Amino acid sequence: MSPFARLPSTPYYVVCFSSMRTRGDHGYGDMADAMEELARQQPGFLGVEGARDADGFGITNAYWADEASIVAWKRNVDHLAAQKLGRERWYEHYEVRVARVERAYGMRER
Amino acid sequence: MSPFARLPSTPYYVVCFSSMRTRGDHGYGDMADAMEELARQQPGFLGVEGARDADGFGITNAYWADEASIVAWKRNVDHLAAQKLGRERWYEHYEVRVARVERAYGMRER
Repeated sequence: MSPFARLPSTPYYVVCFSSMRTRGDHGYGDMADAMEELARQQPGFLGVEGARDADGFGITNAYWADEASIVAWKRNVDHLAAQKLGRERWYEHYEVRVARVERAYGMRER
Repeated sequence: MSPFARLPSTPYYVVCFSSMRTRGDHGYGDMADAMEELARQQPGFLGVEGARDADGFGITNAYWADEASIVAWKRNVDHLAAQKLGRERWYEHYEVRVARVERAYGMRER
């Protein structure tokens, strides 16, 4: 499966989630899979891309149709429980930036 | 050194660069270091965060003060040469999304 999201024409939104993991899994992998599956079912979800390096630093860019979809996902009950565990167990630190994508292009369409 | 960028208050811009590397280095590591160094010297550069997983898929989120700084960096002569090598040698594919960051928060400031 391609790690690249297939996205519609701009504009849309991106949530840039940068995080440093704690050591050990502590249920993280299963929860991350479950949350991605759940996110895909939310209204306005467009796609997600993610990478994490060997030192535990990772970036997930999740794409959404609009701000309302992002706010609704942040308040999803199951997601709220995962966010709490994230702060308590899985992340040493994270930063979130919410941005409006204004233009986009790929390698073959400069 | 922290992998997290220290950014000013919103608004600012992010260039989300998602890429799949080809196999082998072929001068990539040295050029990536040189380009990051050069980017840091450009007007409007605010910070950069990046992660690449073991399969070669990576995300670099580069933060800039405004669109004009992003356009100027894309047209920088040394960067143009690196972009050409990127398309020819280093990347199987990449996608770029340019977005205006409207709000941001960290783990300790929900």
